[in-house]
Amino acid sequence: MTSITRPSGRSPDQLREVRIERGFTRHAEGSVLVSFGDTRVLCTASVENRVPAFLRGKGEGWVTAEYGMLPRATHTRSDREAARGKQGGRTLEIQRLIGRSLRACIDRGLLGERTITLDCDVLQADGGTRTAAITGAYVALADAVQGLLDKRAIKLPSCNRQPIVGAVAAVSVGIYRGVPVLDLDYAEDSDCDTDMNVVMNDGGGFIELQGTAEGHAFRRDELDALLALAEAGCTRLFAAQREALGIAS
Amino acid sequence: MTSITRPSGRSPDQLREVRIERGFTRHAEGSVLVSFGDTRVLCTASVENRVPAFLRGKGEGWVTAEYGMLPRATHTRSDREAARGKQGGRTLEIQRLIGRSLRACIDRGLLGERTITLDCDVLQADGGTRTAAITGAYVALADAVQGLLDKRAIKLPSCNRQPIVGAVAAVSVGIYRGVPVLDLDYAEDSDCDTDMNVVMNDGGGFIELQGTAEGHAFRRDELDALLALAEAGCTRLFAAQREALGIAS
Amino acid sequence: MTSITRPSGRSPDQLREVRIERGFTRHAEGSVLVSFGDTRVLCTASVENRVPAFLRGKGEGWVTAEYGMLPRATHTRSDREAARGKQGGRTLEIQRLIGRSLRACIDRGLLGERTITLDCDVLQADGGTRTAAITGAYVALADAVQGLLDKRAIKLPSCNRQPIVGAVAAVSVGIYRGVPVLDLDYAEDSDCDTDMNVVMNDGGGFIELQGTAEGHAFRRDELDALLALAEAGCTRLFAAQREALGIAS
Amino acid sequence: MTSITRPSGRSPDQLREVRIERGFTRHAEGSVLVSFGDTRVLCTASVENRVPAFLRGKGEGWVTAEYGMLPRATHTRSDREAARGKQGGRTLEIQRLIGRSLRACIDRGLLGERTITLDCDVLQADGGTRTAAITGAYVALADAVQGLLDKRAIKLPSCNRQPIVGAVAAVSVGIYRGVPVLDLDYAEDSDCDTDMNVVMNDGGGFIELQGTAEGHAFRRDELDALLALAEAGCTRLFAAQREALGIAS
Amino acid sequence: MTSITRPSGRSPDQLREVRIERGFTRHAEGSVLVSFGDTRVLCTASVENRVPAFLRGKGEGWVTAEYGMLPRATHTRSDREAARGKQGGRTLEIQRLIGRSLRACIDRGLLGERTITLDCDVLQADGGTRTAAITGAYVALADAVQGLLDKRAIKLPSCNRQPIVGAVAAVSVGIYRGVPVLDLDYAEDSDCDTDMNVVMNDGGGFIELQGTAEGHAFRRDELDALLALAEAGCTRLFAAQREALGIAS
Amino acid sequence: MTSITRPSGRSPDQLREVRIERGFTRHAEGSVLVSFGDTRVLCTASVENRVPAFLRGKGEGWVTAEYGMLPRATHTRSDREAARGKQGGRTLEIQRLIGRSLRACIDRGLLGERTITLDCDVLQADGGTRTAAITGAYVALADAVQGLLDKRAIKLPSCNRQPIVGAVAAVSVGIYRGVPVLDLDYAEDSDCDTDMNVVMNDGGGFIELQGTAEGHAFRRDELDALLALAEAGCTRLFAAQREALGIAS
Repeated sequence: MTSITRPSGRSPDQLREVRIERGFTRHAEGSVLVSFGDTRVLCTASVENRVPAFLRGKGEGWVTAEYGMLPRATHTRSDREAARGKQGGRTLEIQRLIGRSLRACIDRGLLGERTITLDCDVLQADGGTRTAAITGAYVALADAVQGLLDKRAIKLPSCNRQPIVGAVAAVSVGIYRGVPVLDLDYAEDSDCDTDMNVVMNDGGGFIELQGTAEGHAFRRDELDALLALAEAGCTRLFAAQREALGIAS
Repeated sequence: MTSITRPSGRSPDQLREVRIERGFTRHAEGSVLVSFGDTRVLCTASVENRVPAFLRGKGEGWVTAEYGMLPRATHTRSDREAARGKQGGRTLEIQRLIGRSLRACIDRGLLGERTITLDCDVLQADGGTRTAAITGAYVALADAVQGLLDKRAIKLPSCNRQPIVGAVAAVSVGIYRGVPVLDLDYAEDSDCDTDMNVVMNDGGGFIELQGTAEGHAFRRDELDALLALAEAGCTRLFAAQREALGIAS
Repeated sequence: MTSITRPSGRSPDQLREVRIERGFTRHAEGSVLVSFGDTRVLCTASVENRVPAFLRGKGEGWVTAEYGMLPRATHTRSDREAARGKQGGRTLEIQRLIGRSLRACIDRGLLGERTITLDCDVLQADGGTRTAAITGAYVALADAVQGLLDKRAIKLPSCNRQPIVGAVAAVSVGIYRGVPVLDLDYAEDSDCDTDMNVVMNDGGGFIELQGTAEGHAFRRDELDALLALAEAGCTRLFAAQREALGIAS
Repeated sequence: MTSITRPSGRSPDQLREVRIERGFTRHAEGSVLVSFGDTRVLCTASVENRVPAFLRGKGEGWVTAEYGMLPRATHTRSDREAARGKQGGRTLEIQRLIGRSLRACIDRGLLGERTITLDCDVLQADGGTRTAAITGAYVALADAVQGLLDKRAIKLPSCNRQPIVGAVAAVSVGIYRGVPVLDLDYAEDSDCDTDMNVVMNDGGGFIELQGTAEGHAFRRDELDALLALAEAGCTRLFAAQREALGIAS
Repeated sequence: MTSITRPSGRSPDQLREVRIERGFTRHAEGSVLVSFGDTRVLCTASVENRVPAFLRGKGEGWVTAEYGMLPRATHTRSDREAARGKQGGRTLEIQRLIGRSLRACIDRGLLGERTITLDCDVLQADGGTRTAAITGAYVALADAVQGLLDKRAIKLPSCNRQPIVGAVAAVSVGIYRGVPVLDLDYAEDSDCDTDMNVVMNDGGGFIELQGTAEGHAFRRDELDALLALAEAGCTRLFAAQREALGIAS
Repeated sequence: MTSITRPSGRSPDQLREVRIERGFTRHAEGSVLVSFGDTRVLCTASVENRVPAFLRGKGEGWVTAEYGMLPRATHTRSDREAARGKQGGRTLEIQRLIGRSLRACIDRGLLGERTITLDCDVLQADGGTRTAAITGAYVALADAVQGLLDKRAIKLPSCNRQPIVGAVAAVSVGIYRGVPVLDLDYAEDSDCDTDMNVVMNDGGGFIELQGTAEGHAFRRDELDALLALAEAGCTRLFAAQREALGIAS
């Protein structure tokens, strides 16, 4: 592996500092401020006793997500999507990704006819907002589901099967100046031909892979190296989630 | 004056705890997290070297505002305006109010052909979001203007006239159970027939008055009492702003 | 008080000529063409046997308003809001104000599960369109309610309490060249730092106050003078409404 | 021809009372309130010194139209298009028709690089709003063009060719209970299988024909009878236009 | 009649080659690719067991149409209407025309509470897309109705009255270089002052006439010549429809 | 590998029949009807001499894509996006993917200040519309670029470097009943927990990977098997593209 210096001085397989702060706001059933370095995303989980039309009467719940970025979360101010009158393609793509990722960790039958909406709003952006959002949203979701269990709104079956079937976390990887690196920040991301967002569960399974190479196409060996970095990164993110939730590893 | 107990236990002329935290995010030219009790609003000031079409070539600047509320800033989740595809009437009304209020404190000729946009995003709502937004946005604006002075993008005239001509702050007042009270929180606001938002400058002038009485119409003597409460409240907010900005009173 | 000459030659406390013409169009349950000088607004009241979702099943009615301006009501042609695809912030703000003002004069319980919509469309604008609209819409509303009483769709309680609990009128006041004046026309309005729209009921109560000072902030004594002018102006508007409705003063 | 009684008591070839009132509002370059019986449409002509992008630099002008209906112009209230956020198909179709019709009577080269917009707003509807709009808009257009000639903004060529090359008027015809009738009112229109809007110039030429038969298809002989009625009706409308414009017949 | 050469070399009363290909796609209940020369329109008929709100519970069906043009159906690329966020006035006008035309050939009572939607999408445009669409949509509708009869979803009354009461076809006519011609292609259409779209049924009745003369107004004798051309053209289109449907003439 | 029977009877590593028909419509600079079995997508390439604002004056070109589906391309009719007034998240996501994929095969400097827009419209859908679209759009792009070379609008550098730097094709893979399979059709797709779209270039590089596992998360060995299937599938698609373009393999 070529030796490079990352703009942040991190080693190629090093995550940024990860912080997960529960209870950041008080109205939501789950409210988490997650930071991957300077990227800070507020993730709230809201429980509502209704489901979308296509699920009505089926006894199943739904988990969905919405994503937004404050206009000045970024280096230069972006237009406010509410003022422009529509969400851009990037926003829709990210919120669909977050929704699918979180649905992969829940037993929708046990959830019952409820919708949990995960609002992920970026307060400050420095690359990797979608992976931070997924990682934080999982903790907000876990808090919301625990709240439903605590007030016995969800009743567990006798086998004690849990509504949350595993943890979910996400991280980006990419080829920066010829070297596979973990958890790209903005300086790397904007100077990088090739990157991939990887969503995993804590059983080691891949839930989503989104790799993009507008510049240099991935060779198969590069892909293997990136997947290995992502697996290692997610392992550390699962530990951070457990620590935030006060679960012994 | 009838004796009442406010839900928060405050006396009728008592503000909630006010906190003004500068530098909450790092990209914006001014970034302030303002709290009036549990109401928390992130106010950023963004400087851009362009003006709206109607001001082009006139040598004057512009100050404008946008307002938003995170979907779960409130007790129950509200629709995301970006997803609904338009800003509601309340949002437009509030952001127009913030913009007018802040324009009242700046010398747009000295500002030069620049636009400063104040984005006020409510992270948590407990009544009085627009008055907190104005009070915090003033501090963000002051930081942004100071930045322009520091890097000599704005040059002062020989008379040393300043681009910011005075401070601006805002507070709500209302008749709660027959008694005029200062700085309504959500519990009071939703149980209150009559309230008024008052924007003042630190010269004692009124910049905006917006009084609404869907229930009990204001008598003239009530109006006088409310205006007196607002004046006292704004005096304390000006002190908080000066303290945050490190200005000796 | 400094002596000034108003562009129209009026004295500072003089209203423009007020005309209130009932039955201007024939389909609506109330239809009033109101003129404040050259400002002419067509106000119709439409009764429908439905209420908004949040009131369904509560046995109460609703009063709401919509405001529009014909594209060439103004000196230069404005865009048609229907063609632009949305109502502007000013429009939404005004129609919310008209709706709140008219709701303040009606007993929504007696109205029953009905909605009365007040459409206020400006045929010609010369300043003060919102105050003319409120003053005229009250008369259209009174006609619509009388129609419901006449055909016994509303039944009065034995105490003979009426669905309309008082009249509502509105007028603007402002500081023009240093002097407080009543009922600003366009020439004054565009040359005026400070103005206020005042909505009152005929019991002397204030329903809405909306004062704005982008230029010179109101001093407290100016505010007092403006409120006195507004009270006197509304008194004369209540007389004009009664005359139009054929009610002995 | 079968003998029928029209709801209005008119004979089959009788127009409703036509009134054309110039100068109804004062800001527009042409402003006409036209009435075909109870159908009343305010038509204003606005002159602007710009042309659409596709005509820039070609030395030609443009004439276009917009159409709207006040929400309570009709028997029951319709939604306001500005509030719904778009103009309906019927509105777009009518305003395209008005625009094409009026462009057929003007020499766009002589008009020069100007746009004249005809705003046709229906204050009260009783059938035939588009034909009344075209007939009235012609008079508003004539006034606007005369204004340009009066202030020598348009200069005539030495041959004295005029910018308006002929008058335009429109009327509806239809088969009502088996009988061809002229100028349908709402009662006839809603009980009529077959109707046609005919736009003519005063040289006897047909500018637009829009015939629709959702119920009974037109036979060729019926079509001939309808065209004859329309020709006779337009002849009388041209006389009414000339009288309104003070032109000797 | 002056002698002219049409760009295509056709005689004035000659249609372009007409092809009607059934079963072009396989999911729709009717699917027809219709060609008028180089104009190619895919018309599908979709049957759904619901009706619009205004027909619910009345035991009648509905027939409606939507029209679209692929962005590069035309010589230069046009904007995609879905991306622009609205359908243009021309599109709405055409789809309303197609819907009305097809409703004229069906017994909506026999159809029952069903909606048949005719989607007419232009794959390649060379003039006359709306007339090709109507002519092709009739065949798609006939196939969809036959499908309902075949599976006995529609039951015929004892008198054997059919749900389709006659065929519908459409063709354009216009004055090209002073000569009335049939079935204008793009080269003629763009060089033509005056044209008319004519929709007929196979009983010789006129369902829709839409004549437009932005340039030279139609004289009455020209109108007669155009109608005769259109009648002859539709006769040949009815034969082509019957041949496509395998019906002996 | 477990033995399964695919609904289509194909073996796990078998593509559907692929057809690539050039010149399907005649106006576009490239026009290809691509079929993957019953999935049929019309791909047109349109060349315009302009670039988006962010590229103006940089001497580089742009390649972008738009995607649409005819309302009845699917088993049941979907809403027309133009009528709904916006493109859905799925549409935006797919057209962004197509655009990125095609940009990966072109030298934007050699293209010059031009935009090539690839419109991919699905005429009939049976799974895999985005992969068929990419595979066909490459051929349309190649035709459009060849046209620019033929008329010397693009001039090659002396080294003879070509504007198209390699071919691009795409295919889907997934786990169907426990077995990795190639090129999912609709029957498989809707019964499949896990699938991945793979875009490759003909140098063996991966351009885009989009794997989704709402049901069963991918294990690493499954991922390897899927990538191998995709590589083999793309190899055959490159051969089909070359054959369509008349290039000797």
